[in-house]
Amino acid sequence: VAKRLQAVAASGGGGGGDREAFRQAVVNTLERRLFYIASFKIYRGVAGLYDYGPPGCAVKSNVLAFWRQHFVLEENMLEVDCPCVTPEIVLKASGHVEKFTDLMVKDDKTGTCYRADHLLKDYCKEKLEKDLTLSAEKAAEFKHVLAVLDDFSAEELGAKLKEFGITAPDSKNPLSEPYPFNLMFQTSIGPSGLSPGYMRPETAQGIFVNFKDLYYYNGNKLPFAAAQIGQAFRNEISPRQGLLRVREFTLAEIEHFVDPEDKSHPKFVDVADLEFLMFPRELQLAGESAKLMLLGEAVRKGTVNNETLGYFIGRVYLFLTSLGIDKERLRFRQHLPNEMAHYAADCWDAEIECSHGWIECVGIADRSAYDLRAHSEKSGVPLVAHEKYPEPREVEKLVITPSKKELGLAFKGNQKMVVEALEAMSESEALEMKSALESKGELEFQVCNIGKSVSIKKNMVSISMEKKKEHQRVFTPSVIEPSFGIGRIIYCLFEHCFYTRPSKSEEEQLNVFRFPSLVAPIKCTVFPLIKSQKFDEAAKVISKSLTAAGISHIIDITGTSIGKRYARTDELGVPFAVTVDSTSTVTIRERDSKDQIRVNVDEVASVVKEVAEGQSTWADIMWRFPTHSVSHPDED
Amino acid sequence: VAKRLQAVAASGGGGGGDREAFRQAVVNTLERRLFYIASFKIYRGVAGLYDYGPPGCAVKSNVLAFWRQHFVLEENMLEVDCPCVTPEIVLKASGHVEKFTDLMVKDDKTGTCYRADHLLKDYCKEKLEKDLTLSAEKAAEFKHVLAVLDDFSAEELGAKLKEFGITAPDSKNPLSEPYPFNLMFQTSIGPSGLSPGYMRPETAQGIFVNFKDLYYYNGNKLPFAAAQIGQAFRNEISPRQGLLRVREFTLAEIEHFVDPEDKSHPKFVDVADLEFLMFPRELQLAGESAKLMLLGEAVRKGTVNNETLGYFIGRVYLFLTSLGIDKERLRFRQHLPNEMAHYAADCWDAEIECSHGWIECVGIADRSAYDLRAHSEKSGVPLVAHEKYPEPREVEKLVITPSKKELGLAFKGNQKMVVEALEAMSESEALEMKSALESKGELEFQVCNIGKSVSIKKNMVSISMEKKKEHQRVFTPSVIEPSFGIGRIIYCLFEHCFYTRPSKSEEEQLNVFRFPSLVAPIKCTVFPLIKSQKFDEAAKVISKSLTAAGISHIIDITGTSIGKRYARTDELGVPFAVTVDSTSTVTIRERDSKDQIRVNVDEVASVVKEVAEGQSTWADIMWRFPTHSVSHPDED
Repeated sequence: VAKRLQAVAASGGGGGGDREAFRQAVVNTLERRLFYIASFKIYRGVAGLYDYGPPGCAVKSNVLAFWRQHFVLEENMLEVDCPCVTPEIVLKASGHVEKFTDLMVKDDKTGTCYRADHLLKDYCKEKLEKDLTLSAEKAAEFKHVLAVLDDFSAEELGAKLKEFGITAPDSKNPLSEPYPFNLMFQTSIGPSGLSPGYMRPETAQGIFVNFKDLYYYNGNKLPFAAAQIGQAFRNEISPRQGLLRVREFTLAEIEHFVDPEDKSHPKFVDVADLEFLMFPRELQLAGESAKLMLLGEAVRKGTVNNETLGYFIGRVYLFLTSLGIDKERLRFRQHLPNEMAHYAADCWDAEIECSHGWIECVGIADRSAYDLRAHSEKSGVPLVAHEKYPEPREVEKLVITPSKKELGLAFKGNQKMVVEALEAMSESEALEMKSALESKGELEFQVCNIGKSVSIKKNMVSISMEKKKEHQRVFTPSVIEPSFGIGRIIYCLFEHCFYTRPSKSEEEQLNVFRFPSLVAPIKCTVFPLIKSQKFDEAAKVISKSLTAAGISHIIDITGTSIGKRYARTDELGVPFAVTVDSTSTVTIRERDSKDQIRVNVDEVASVVKEVAEGQSTWADIMWRFPTHSVSHPDED
Repeated sequence: VAKRLQAVAASGGGGGGDREAFRQAVVNTLERRLFYIASFKIYRGVAGLYDYGPPGCAVKSNVLAFWRQHFVLEENMLEVDCPCVTPEIVLKASGHVEKFTDLMVKDDKTGTCYRADHLLKDYCKEKLEKDLTLSAEKAAEFKHVLAVLDDFSAEELGAKLKEFGITAPDSKNPLSEPYPFNLMFQTSIGPSGLSPGYMRPETAQGIFVNFKDLYYYNGNKLPFAAAQIGQAFRNEISPRQGLLRVREFTLAEIEHFVDPEDKSHPKFVDVADLEFLMFPRELQLAGESAKLMLLGEAVRKGTVNNETLGYFIGRVYLFLTSLGIDKERLRFRQHLPNEMAHYAADCWDAEIECSHGWIECVGIADRSAYDLRAHSEKSGVPLVAHEKYPEPREVEKLVITPSKKELGLAFKGNQKMVVEALEAMSESEALEMKSALESKGELEFQVCNIGKSVSIKKNMVSISMEKKKEHQRVFTPSVIEPSFGIGRIIYCLFEHCFYTRPSKSEEEQLNVFRFPSLVAPIKCTVFPLIKSQKFDEAAKVISKSLTAAGISHIIDITGTSIGKRYARTDELGVPFAVTVDSTSTVTIRERDSKDQIRVNVDEVASVVKEVAEGQSTWADIMWRFPTHSVSHPDED
């Protein structure tokens, strides 16, 4: 089935049935072996909430440990850990209170809620797939709607729903007009009920508000990166796509702060030779597909905006493929202009293909100075960096000097307000005033604080450009943000690692997860071949030595056939199985090749450690130890 | 100061000023070096919310990694990871919706909220400490109030507040009557506003609701343990005690499910010889203090209820002391009867002494079958275990057979309700009825469903003990729950590891954290002695080899004196510092002894790894390498 899916995937469409069947096979295995559990299942669950059961949880903690190793430790990032509960003011500054919404419609009679764009999308897709009488013209219209759906305003969406006569899917009742629903879980901090708060929708804000301290911690030097792993929350209107769209999830985010005038990266050379699938804007607009590109070339040509952004794209590629993501089903897609926030300089998503299509799993955005500026303004605390000049520089600066005496004579009690308003003028306002005063001698000037305009005369203010010596440059850093949806990566990993193969008797298909050791939930299982005290004791000795070596493992002493036990451990993706068939030497079996070697009991732990931690490959190990080629008696 | 505090601590009281000064010194260091940051500081923060800054976050992730190693991996626990957002029904079943409250009073005029017991406690303490005219009788009364405070009902608390004339601390306004305030953060799941939910107050419930699946995963065998690490939330009325009482925190919880008839533990022998401070109920009630006891003896004598509980107490002791908690300021205190839930069989807290007094950091409770029963009842899903008998057993069972015919004749329309009430009788009720019917021929029987009692005659019901063959025993497992407040443990660890020592010039006191390598935020710093390209390059080579060996480290290339750089790294608790003073050999300095050895550049990583990961002690290493005894030129 995996092969078939790959073929389907390669052919780029169709075969929905195959995808569906493949997904069912994976999800059944994941749920039966408790990789996932629907949360609060005994109470019939809650849409969009899932638990990681024991093997899923182990995979997750392996992925996070590797993330920390690959990003935080190797790059000396400053990791922080901030609360999920967040006061309203922070999320007002970030824009989430106002803008973190989806458009919703309600069934006019039952009150059931739907995502407006989902209803429109479903309608168009169904028409295109199932309505055989559709005219070419109509078909083109539906395709166009699907393409521009994400840009629709509430009014446009409402108009389309009306035009197509779309009603509530369950009841066929009429629908309300679309209106924005905020996706944050709201709560209240403290007992008074007067301090609204939200469960954070991302971890990034916790880093931005700490910029000043972190910059200081880094010796007031740029660039540096801060990182955070933690839970984030989105109160989805109607979660779909199973494990891919959930209401609570783990994010791992990096905020790399950099001088906007110098986005080079000293380690870019280390990733410049990587070649992988990239899908720049131009190819998308031309209707072409992603193509293999050299990262170094993509940056040199300006396809990727700058070296730092390029460096992170390369590091993300290495991270994902080390986990076991298939590099042929991984692409970096550049955001189209309409997807990108107005302030963003450039943005690429690492998309992974699974049975649900291409899924955004990592976003890598150059967000310019937007976030730091927003929090500076709201909090009144400057979140800026300083660059000391080797020697002072001469710069031209606008100087506004109100004449307090003249203003006092003219405006009496309002003098102070007028002075303040004059001093607060922007450079362009001031230059305009300067030229008006020079040409006409006076002008009308709006003073907000006193709520009216006053007439300013030439003798009331002097405006000039003066040369000044500056010792440093003060600026708001740009931030480059790689943001990882850990749950999505893990789900795609499960699909990429899953395959089936016939049992020895060819009577049934057995499931296997080909996890790299790095992420496998357990590195090794230990099986006494038959029930026997001697073998059980040898298994315990091996288990102790594995524990001492820090290798996670389990002993399976159930009386089932060794073949069944192999199948069980393959289905959990355990890379190595040790079968105790004597008290002096035992066999070690590799999951995918099913090769077995014979090793002394006291060498088992060091051999498994060596290959599980990647110091040696299985092929190396095969050279060094005798192959065990006879099947165990009841291997099936 | 640390010495003084220890003296104060040892003398068991008084010296509040010293404690206060010591705490200020620790907290200043922690905040200045960003172990902690008040969350959302640029917006003036939120009481009870703190961030872990870079070194604090590193310590936390080391503590959690060790917890996972020490408990989950070594004991083969089933780790799960459940959401924080929890639907109301789950927390109704657990009792949190009804009972997870603190008593609150409001300032009648301003509406400011206070914890009622805090006000009473503060009042009594202040009287005892500052009122010099207090009569012995009054003093005894205040002491009594402080002792029984935690047991007061809302009415009793209200009466005491009135009696003592306690008013709002800030405004002196009168206070409302105390009333319960639920400490859970409430929210709403989904867009309808009709599904209330809460942020979980503990992680345990996520495990209980999954019992059935986890039991199956474990091959339907007891005992087994499940574990979870995650965020928990308590909307404290007025958080005090700084980092010890916060509104969001990380819990690590274990639920060990065990047959209530067999709480022995095969590995108890491994911990039986441990000796540490225990503070059983009897000693507390006798006004004595904790004393050293052998764990094996405490279990044998029944001081600790059972082996499994004892085993976990021992494992918790090993965990905490491995982290660096001072064993002389760690005690296991048994709950007094009034502290313990009615269903609990026994409960011990690991308490750690810090400047705030003895702080509960780990609770280890035998919660019997309470939680599983509560969820069984609410969900209708039986959360039980089965024990197959080797051969069927004959058991006596009570059989209640109502005669529907006679009951119908007697009670007509109420027949069904009476039948149900008879069948629902407990064994003792039924046996009582049996004997009453045999002696008197009839009796009055209360039928709740119809709200009155009816007269039951001998011919209406037959009650008998019958022999039956049973093939298995079905029972609700007991659960033994070690629950770790990770933030509290880390804060106490900071206090226990902190000390000061004079600088070389004796002009100032320098701060040091004597973290074991296991938890140190960074294992090693690398300093080029002077600014020089050669030394910088050697430092980079060493850094690369440390990265390859997986040793977290930083390079400090600032031009400050080596003495200042040592002080800076000691204050972060970094155990080893490598000073590059030549391109062939370098020095390695140990933080607490300040001993230095000389090592070849290409050996540095392996030596640091060996001692940082505990394969060798520093003393071993000192034997193997030449000591470097000459001070570096500007070491201060």
